Amino acid sequence: MLYLIGLGLGDEKDITLRGLEAVKKCEKVYMEAYTSLLSFGLSTDGLSTLEKLYGKPITVADREMVEEKVDSVLSEATSFDVAFLVVGDPFGATTHTDLVVRAKELGVEVKVIHNASVMNAVGICGLQLYRYGETISIPFFTDTWKPDSFYEKIQRNRELGLHTLCLLDIKVKEPTWESLCRGKKLYEPPRFMTINTAIEQLLEIEQNCGDRGESAYNEDTNCVGLARLGSEDQKIVAGTMRQLLAVDFGAPLHCLVIAGTTHPIEEEMLNMYKLKGV
Amino acid sequence: MLYLIGLGLGDEKDITLRGLEAVKKCEKVYMEAYTSLLSFGLSTDGLSTLEKLYGKPITVADREMVEEKVDSVLSEATSFDVAFLVVGDPFGATTHTDLVVRAKELGVEVKVIHNASVMNAVGICGLQLYRYGETISIPFFTDTWKPDSFYEKIQRNRELGLHTLCLLDIKVKEPTWESLCRGKKLYEPPRFMTINTAIEQLLEIEQNCGDRGESAYNEDTNCVGLARLGSEDQKIVAGTMRQLLAVDFGAPLHCLVIAGTTHPIEEEMLNMYKLKGV
Repeated sequence: MLYLIGLGLGDEKDITLRGLEAVKKCEKVYMEAYTSLLSFGLSTDGLSTLEKLYGKPITVADREMVEEKVDSVLSEATSFDVAFLVVGDPFGATTHTDLVVRAKELGVEVKVIHNASVMNAVGICGLQLYRYGETISIPFFTDTWKPDSFYEKIQRNRELGLHTLCLLDIKVKEPTWESLCRGKKLYEPPRFMTINTAIEQLLEIEQNCGDRGESAYNEDTNCVGLARLGSEDQKIVAGTMRQLLAVDFGAPLHCLVIAGTTHPIEEEMLNMYKLKGV
Repeated sequence: MLYLIGLGLGDEKDITLRGLEAVKKCEKVYMEAYTSLLSFGLSTDGLSTLEKLYGKPITVADREMVEEKVDSVLSEATSFDVAFLVVGDPFGATTHTDLVVRAKELGVEVKVIHNASVMNAVGICGLQLYRYGETISIPFFTDTWKPDSFYEKIQRNRELGLHTLCLLDIKVKEPTWESLCRGKKLYEPPRFMTINTAIEQLLEIEQNCGDRGESAYNEDTNCVGLARLGSEDQKIVAGTMRQLLAVDFGAPLHCLVIAGTTHPIEEEMLNMYKLKGV
């Protein structure tokens, strides 16, 4: 049996009782590294905290490993119970459908244990979940690569009065340019996009697209920035893009919501997060 | 302090360690009755199972109580720790923003403990969460009241190729017609909408709106029905509206997803849920 277990958003205490029970009976425990490196601080003490709680070692599975060794993990799951831990929910922002489909092909039974993910916990900002349109992802721009396909999605959401959840880029285990040239495996340090960078990029794109006579948002558009959502030290600030540009949201992970039209009850809640004295 | 604690979707084991820790230190524990009556089967043993786990009594708070006595609950929270338990996530399908706003007004600190809700757990069907448009709610039709404002939302989502999550009506503690006339408090037994009823109503509305030359979907449109999502005995079936009409999904709660355009990886996952031999 393969248990696909959501860990929630904060720390080791956000696993459910059902999830903990499953981990404890599994012979082998893998943990997806993609977001966990940043949100659980696995480079430092995060991993050992989890190992202590579970009473067994965890193998951190980076993307390479998941892609290259998925069949060997799944073949283990044919003979004993294996846990695959995922930050948030197994089908949240980073989905694991490919793992489930492959398991099915190999005849491995899969049990999913859900948890909170950014996709629902973002509701805490007061903008109601059922009034969100399509979710977008904002990638890091480079000097020569500035994809803007998210722009028209935001525009569509805004025209319909809907809110837009923006997931911000995470770069984990990106091979360095040098390593690509030399065939050696060297990786860039992990990077995550801040709310500030996201807004800068959004405004840059708006300027370009605005020239074409469109306008999806501007510096005065209301947004909510959410950092470390679900953690003890989460930071949520509501304000215009211009205002949020000046806020230091601190450590990762960050995400951003661009508000659509707001209802009175939503506004009351947003007011709680507004910058004071601005 | 007021702890607003999500219980997740299945049973008592779906609370998080953080949530359980908070409940245990609270002097008073309330539980929202709106969805819990149905999903936790509180009329039978569900409540006592929870009380045993928490080691303290739970006061079930129906909507009337939440509306009428919210200030007394909140005033308790100024002098000791109070837990307010919510099925799913506190800001999921049924939001509790009004409670948070009122707490803030009274100077009560609020701590939110997230969990899975239908809004993210629905990702298990394989249709990826970031490709959903606006969520809709389908109310019970009566002979004289057939609101169809959800129709154009589905239509918009489908035109954009997006999936639509349909939340289905729940009627809990509805006063009887007799009680309204006599001024006595008598309530209808709880009712929940099945996937079958939802599809019947959707097709009825399509027929009416189709006459106006529009068409958002039809009997051959692909959908996924999800019953008791997140429970041990959840039932997920993918198929056309016509096919799902004939499926017995069993006990509540039910929800329905109307698929937009699907990607290959989504289709692979949907195939796992398709009816065999149809």
